[in-house]
Amino acid sequence: MTQMDLHHLVGIDAGGTRTRALAAHENGVFSRCEAGAGNYQLLGLEGVVELFAGLLAQLQLDSDRTTVCAAVAGAGRPAEQERLSVALLARGLAARVCIVADARAALEGAHGGEAGIIAIAGTGSIVMGRGKASQVERAGGWGPLLGDEGSAYSFVMAGLRAAGQSHDGSGPATCLEVDLVNKLGLADWDSLIPALYGGHLQRDRLASACPVVFRAARAGDEVARQIIASGAQRLGAQVGAVARRLCLPTASVTLAGGLGEAEGDWLWAEMQPDGGADGDQPELRRVPARLPPLGGALLLACAHAGIEPPPVDRADCESG
Amino acid sequence: MTQMDLHHLVGIDAGGTRTRALAAHENGVFSRCEAGAGNYQLLGLEGVVELFAGLLAQLQLDSDRTTVCAAVAGAGRPAEQERLSVALLARGLAARVCIVADARAALEGAHGGEAGIIAIAGTGSIVMGRGKASQVERAGGWGPLLGDEGSAYSFVMAGLRAAGQSHDGSGPATCLEVDLVNKLGLADWDSLIPALYGGHLQRDRLASACPVVFRAARAGDEVARQIIASGAQRLGAQVGAVARRLCLPTASVTLAGGLGEAEGDWLWAEMQPDGGADGDQPELRRVPARLPPLGGALLLACAHAGIEPPPVDRADCESG
Repeated sequence: MTQMDLHHLVGIDAGGTRTRALAAHENGVFSRCEAGAGNYQLLGLEGVVELFAGLLAQLQLDSDRTTVCAAVAGAGRPAEQERLSVALLARGLAARVCIVADARAALEGAHGGEAGIIAIAGTGSIVMGRGKASQVERAGGWGPLLGDEGSAYSFVMAGLRAAGQSHDGSGPATCLEVDLVNKLGLADWDSLIPALYGGHLQRDRLASACPVVFRAARAGDEVARQIIASGAQRLGAQVGAVARRLCLPTASVTLAGGLGEAEGDWLWAEMQPDGGADGDQPELRRVPARLPPLGGALLLACAHAGIEPPPVDRADCESG
Repeated sequence: MTQMDLHHLVGIDAGGTRTRALAAHENGVFSRCEAGAGNYQLLGLEGVVELFAGLLAQLQLDSDRTTVCAAVAGAGRPAEQERLSVALLARGLAARVCIVADARAALEGAHGGEAGIIAIAGTGSIVMGRGKASQVERAGGWGPLLGDEGSAYSFVMAGLRAAGQSHDGSGPATCLEVDLVNKLGLADWDSLIPALYGGHLQRDRLASACPVVFRAARAGDEVARQIIASGAQRLGAQVGAVARRLCLPTASVTLAGGLGEAEGDWLWAEMQPDGGADGDQPELRRVPARLPPLGGALLLACAHAGIEPPPVDRADCESG
């Protein structure tokens, strides 16, 4: 790898509420700046380019010597990433650009650029891992209709399905029948159907009712317990699949995302493969994230530039 | 009940592809006529009124002596039924009108107006039953996000979820991974996600891939078998719940809907409560539908008018 002092390296974490940039300069000096929300689907191509132009101007870099890696919410598809990358280069903001999905930067940060796996459980969910030869594999994360198991939204929807079965007597009784409907601000079960199918209950609002499911389970509701166990087991199966594909017999796993952080202990306990599993079940070790996604984006910028990463720690990534 | 010869009684079955009317007159004479699609959501209030006006004109009835019961697709909510009923009366088309959901007429027809249960499995699903005192109970049918278990759409979506798990190695291998993607006319698994979330795969088109799941199960695919067993067991649980609520220790059950007719034997075999169930499990006897929904609508018109129903059989309901 070449010497870092020929370059500025910039990681950007563009999320739903704010966008942060972290630059590494010669001699291990870091600088940071911050702006508003950076979701690609909301801002569009031009909006994101303007946002990044403003951030990079604040950092006062020589763009000919700058490599940027940006993790952009809402830009998960390769075509979107390519389009954004081309636009940033055309604007002359950097000499090299790479755009990644936000999960990719979270993975890189969580394990400080080393091999490991991240299970992100927020409104949605995804499992992503990086092997010793830097290869990346994923499992789950197929969206609310096909996947996202172990996510807040999926727990609430499973809770509502169980509530319906409790309501019509085709499944066991559960306090979720009353508790979820209350939490969602509805009068009763019957008002749920038009609210749900009429589009009045957005995914975020449904996901925000997730604490009700965990509270019910803590209070001994067997249906709620089973829903949590089942979602966590699916996350565990996804982590196992990624570990096998990466040939990691022992894998470091970080639980991230709003739900992964709030209920990580519980999810982790249920994610463990049971004793009776077949022999090739990888051994999973839970570890906290070394760096936030912003740090991961900086590490990916270094990799993209072919430059040895500077020693960055959590404090370097945090504003203050 | 009053004498029928004071009245014309009309049943209407307004469905997604055609609308049929069956009128019962004095002395057991029946007349029929037919028109185009009658879905309330597509035609709107005025469109359905016009359609019915045309049908009733063909039947040349004295509207002051006519009672109509219409089962209208897309008019499942009481508010819609009430609005349509008021509009038909205001137009002077009949002396009495009742509007019911299509499942209600199917239930009435299936058991010839006697106590029994219908499990309708088509694109969606619902279980509805009628007790000895004419009370009606339902289970399931909460739509594609919360219910509709055992429906063609739900089997295909479960198949796609299993295909995703096969694809990323977090679940057992299944031929559905290739077969469903092929059947849906997609190039590969990766093209499924944008097609699904971009709205290019409508619910009907997804449901139409259901035979692939049954074919896979017949060919020995264990994942597909499990999906069918699980959906059918949910339908069975719903039938059991309705039988209990109706206090029917022995219940006659009709399987209806496209899937219920095509794969009724298989579904029924899996719906049976297992031997280990608790003692109050109702005994379910499978019976074919006595009358189609059109006949059921006519029986409901009789009940609405308080008139003893004429002896109607399947042939009376069929055009020819």
